[in-house]
Amino acid sequence: MANWEDWIRRTEPYVPGEQPRGDRLIKLNTNENPYPPAPGVQKALERMRAEDFRKYPDPEASALKAALAGRYRLTPEQIFVGVGSDDVLAMAFLTFFNSSRPVLFPDITYSFYPVWAGLFRIPYETAPLDEQFCLRPEDYRRENGGIVFPNPNAPTGLCLPLEAVEDILRHNRDVVVIVDEAYIDFGGESAVCLLDRYENLLVVQTFSKSRSMAGLRIGFAMGSPKLIRALENVKFAYNSYTLNLPSLVLGTEAVKDEAYFQETTGRIVRTREKTAGRLRQLGFQFPDSRANFLFITHEKADAARLYEALKEARIYVRYFPSGRLAPYLRMTIGTDEEMEQVLAFLEDYLRRN
Amino acid sequence: MANWEDWIRRTEPYVPGEQPRGDRLIKLNTNENPYPPAPGVQKALERMRAEDFRKYPDPEASALKAALAGRYRLTPEQIFVGVGSDDVLAMAFLTFFNSSRPVLFPDITYSFYPVWAGLFRIPYETAPLDEQFCLRPEDYRRENGGIVFPNPNAPTGLCLPLEAVEDILRHNRDVVVIVDEAYIDFGGESAVCLLDRYENLLVVQTFSKSRSMAGLRIGFAMGSPKLIRALENVKFAYNSYTLNLPSLVLGTEAVKDEAYFQETTGRIVRTREKTAGRLRQLGFQFPDSRANFLFITHEKADAARLYEALKEARIYVRYFPSGRLAPYLRMTIGTDEEMEQVLAFLEDYLRRN
Repeated sequence: MANWEDWIRRTEPYVPGEQPRGDRLIKLNTNENPYPPAPGVQKALERMRAEDFRKYPDPEASALKAALAGRYRLTPEQIFVGVGSDDVLAMAFLTFFNSSRPVLFPDITYSFYPVWAGLFRIPYETAPLDEQFCLRPEDYRRENGGIVFPNPNAPTGLCLPLEAVEDILRHNRDVVVIVDEAYIDFGGESAVCLLDRYENLLVVQTFSKSRSMAGLRIGFAMGSPKLIRALENVKFAYNSYTLNLPSLVLGTEAVKDEAYFQETTGRIVRTREKTAGRLRQLGFQFPDSRANFLFITHEKADAARLYEALKEARIYVRYFPSGRLAPYLRMTIGTDEEMEQVLAFLEDYLRRN
Repeated sequence: MANWEDWIRRTEPYVPGEQPRGDRLIKLNTNENPYPPAPGVQKALERMRAEDFRKYPDPEASALKAALAGRYRLTPEQIFVGVGSDDVLAMAFLTFFNSSRPVLFPDITYSFYPVWAGLFRIPYETAPLDEQFCLRPEDYRRENGGIVFPNPNAPTGLCLPLEAVEDILRHNRDVVVIVDEAYIDFGGESAVCLLDRYENLLVVQTFSKSRSMAGLRIGFAMGSPKLIRALENVKFAYNSYTLNLPSLVLGTEAVKDEAYFQETTGRIVRTREKTAGRLRQLGFQFPDSRANFLFITHEKADAARLYEALKEARIYVRYFPSGRLAPYLRMTIGTDEEMEQVLAFLEDYLRRN
């Protein structure tokens, strides 16, 4: 073995959900939005010319930050943008988690957290969720080097009330607390309203779910100007130009159409509740979801087998085959029509098995 | 000062060139290509629909890798892609430079190298260029933790012959050697042909210069499957979905049109040589450039003052106001028309000053 191989950074990568291609499949495995982006995005796309790609994009992402600042009643100095919320979170780990004390996050959570900690050699400890998959704020009162949790949590969909989020903040004024709100727009209460009072709070969101733009890779963070400045500083030490021109222009358009945003997220919430009711009738159980997915289990159906059967029927869901998650499947909320087809399949499957 | 501020990663960011907006300016400060991307890019842009953005892009970037593999006569397992060559280089620093020995690079070079080393706490030493700004391969024979240099070099434009690159490789089989070929397509000899023989060689290139796509953020690395696998592993531990759909689709189109690529890069080389001849007549001196820029100095013109005068005339070039670079200006090669205007300005300026 040549010496150079000894100096390679060894790390355990995250495994993203499958991206099967082709028509005539129902893709409910990566929490994408079933509706297209706001109509203004298509119009802006039509105005875009290839010759515009000749020049570097705005490294400050000023227009996008201004649009987001307006939407969330913040200043542009409180907004950071990146290549999806994964990029934003990775950069936040690198920027803020440099203490020798362990960072804390739940044992069942977005599975990228331990991966980033591993990549950047950040010590961490996990706090187990309770029997009902609930995060217990009191678990976050011990000494730590930072805190991160998704709200709603992944892959359960359970949302912590704002008081519980604030309880964690009140007990952790000395470290950066990251609330990962990838799924907040489907009925959860955002911690953005706490930014005024907690200079150490970073709220991370994404365009991939509620804004139907997973393919454009846009994520953002909101926080105090001090936190954002620290993130910007690390970003400019990593890659000056992260968001490309299409992301900057089309992302800005998406933020402008609040009515469409409300309409489509509202529609997904209604489909979720309707689907939840039907699933309950079929004997499925699941935590109360405030996200665009349901985390379902059935006493009489083995999750691994059901996962394979769904796949055979060209219905893709996500299966995490280990520990407490093994009896469950995570199913994204698609259109009403897609959910009808899935429910019909499940009804038939349960009858046959 | 709250405790959390103590754990912020302190680092010195890179300062990108200005991105002035507006028409009627000649922008020769960030080495962009004056020609639009290949015509197929515009056609593919017109076929793109906003609803395509709903889903995640291909995290493996298979189509783009296949196109690049075809173009460079490699296999897709030898190709890594990222958000511009800065992203690729940053990830390569993080992946390969983990020894306690210092990484080596020239003292005058792409100014992002010390920034990445600082960000990731990588020890480094610089090897001074000689009096003529030439890199001396013999400086790279001491113990080190890795080597990186641009070829052609920035901001001089000087290109190392292939024998010199191979000399460095021959003396450094135990570390990863990165040849940063951002500007290789304007007349330099690429090290890609050495990949067969050096498993520890990583060649990094970009779509930002020769493919007119700075605004899309596409960079790539070519190396042995072992090196590429290590990079992919770190990438999937950082952000699974880096290149967005427009970059994947339009980047692939750009690679397909070899004739356009040859035509436009050839045109820039001819404009560079013509401009160089005229500048010489005006008394300017500059290293022999194999890049899409010239690094010019004039005995009778102070660089800082000339920089300001050019800016006032809405001509933007890049000025690095320190050390041995202070007497120079780096000027991107634009269209023949743009260079005519610049030359007319310079002629007039020298007459007046």
